[in-house]
Amino acid sequence: MPHRSTEHEVLAVVFQVRQLTTRNPQLSVLLWERAMEPQRGAWSLPGGRLRHDEDMTSSVRRQLAEKVDLREVTHLEQLAVFSEPDRVPGARVIASTFLGLVPSDATPALPDDTRWHPVDALPPMAFDHRPMVTHAHTRLIAKLSYTNIGFALTPKEFALSTLRDIYSAAIAHPVDATNLQRVLARRGVITPTGTTARSGRSGGRPAALYRFTESSYRVTDEFAALRPPN
Amino acid sequence: MPHRSTEHEVLAVVFQVRQLTTRNPQLSVLLWERAMEPQRGAWSLPGGRLRHDEDMTSSVRRQLAEKVDLREVTHLEQLAVFSEPDRVPGARVIASTFLGLVPSDATPALPDDTRWHPVDALPPMAFDHRPMVTHAHTRLIAKLSYTNIGFALTPKEFALSTLRDIYSAAIAHPVDATNLQRVLARRGVITPTGTTARSGRSGGRPAALYRFTESSYRVTDEFAALRPPN
Repeated sequence: MPHRSTEHEVLAVVFQVRQLTTRNPQLSVLLWERAMEPQRGAWSLPGGRLRHDEDMTSSVRRQLAEKVDLREVTHLEQLAVFSEPDRVPGARVIASTFLGLVPSDATPALPDDTRWHPVDALPPMAFDHRPMVTHAHTRLIAKLSYTNIGFALTPKEFALSTLRDIYSAAIAHPVDATNLQRVLARRGVITPTGTTARSGRSGGRPAALYRFTESSYRVTDEFAALRPPN
Repeated sequence: MPHRSTEHEVLAVVFQVRQLTTRNPQLSVLLWERAMEPQRGAWSLPGGRLRHDEDMTSSVRRQLAEKVDLREVTHLEQLAVFSEPDRVPGARVIASTFLGLVPSDATPALPDDTRWHPVDALPPMAFDHRPMVTHAHTRLIAKLSYTNIGFALTPKEFALSTLRDIYSAAIAHPVDATNLQRVLARRGVITPTGTTARSGRSGGRPAALYRFTESSYRVTDEFAALRPPN
């Protein structure tokens, strides 16, 4: 049976919760504007062809580094493969997407062609990059519910009101700060630092600060209770 | 910059909890024995090259159908990409793995070259197929803890002792039936059928039967409580 050779590309969906205006913070995604055909002027996910001497994770790190300082990407993981035979014009290209997260207090310098766009107001996008963003957002929402992945979106220390704003933006639903604190503290996902910060709001009492207990990714749900004592 | 073209293959890690002997059931994986070089005699995951006119899910379904009746595969999803440049000899081949699950009471007919192997006693395996099985097993364990994926490993109706045996085999740790029932029932993942079955053990009273509330995959953890009322 005949097999046509294929090319392979890696594409990164990098999210940051950003305070764009005086409104609430918004989940945003890193995109660059295509200066050449095909689809000149449409916005693309950062990434590109896999080189013959690198694996996908090395490739996505190399290509992301052209757009953003990698020290600011606190989480990066494989997501999914998009393999529709005709997803791009010309030779077949199979795309693997990665999820990248940047903390809300990072201020990465960006190249001229690159910008953050709110996920709920995406510009015209190239090829199948819009469904890739939607898929990554869906996965992020799920992962926020059963893992500690929030560490990668937040500052190192934060007040509960900040945590609530970040989760609300990422989940795209309002979240109650007290519920959030209850669930995450019971699971041991967040820990009080024992210090306080002045509230940004006039006249407020100082807010207790929290941090994520661990800053590497793990599943945190309570089903762990089924596992043996150690 | 030069790009070498690559081939792409799909490989399925299909698990079933099987009662092999009089011992407890064991999580097993579907493998076929290579009749030709390279790596003649080593055991491989089912799958193969992606055709130019099919996407990956179509491809893995087509190739799995050569090994097992697809009606018996109750869950199939993309897992990960293995893209080490030299993972196989000759031209570069990037592999995408899929997780497949078969209920414990299915008895699929297998071709002569194909057999179920206990995950904790794998035979000599081809290329990087062993780490693919390990990765898929790790993902299955995680998914059992925060989703209803157990539906795809169990009979339609089951006693709690059967459910416990299946989870214990899949998680590779003993699980307590009462704890399991408590966690899964509280989350609405399993529901009593209202009927009973004769216990297989002599003299036991009839066991209450349960079923999975839904037979499509979803995240079931309680973090849903943070979402708004609807």
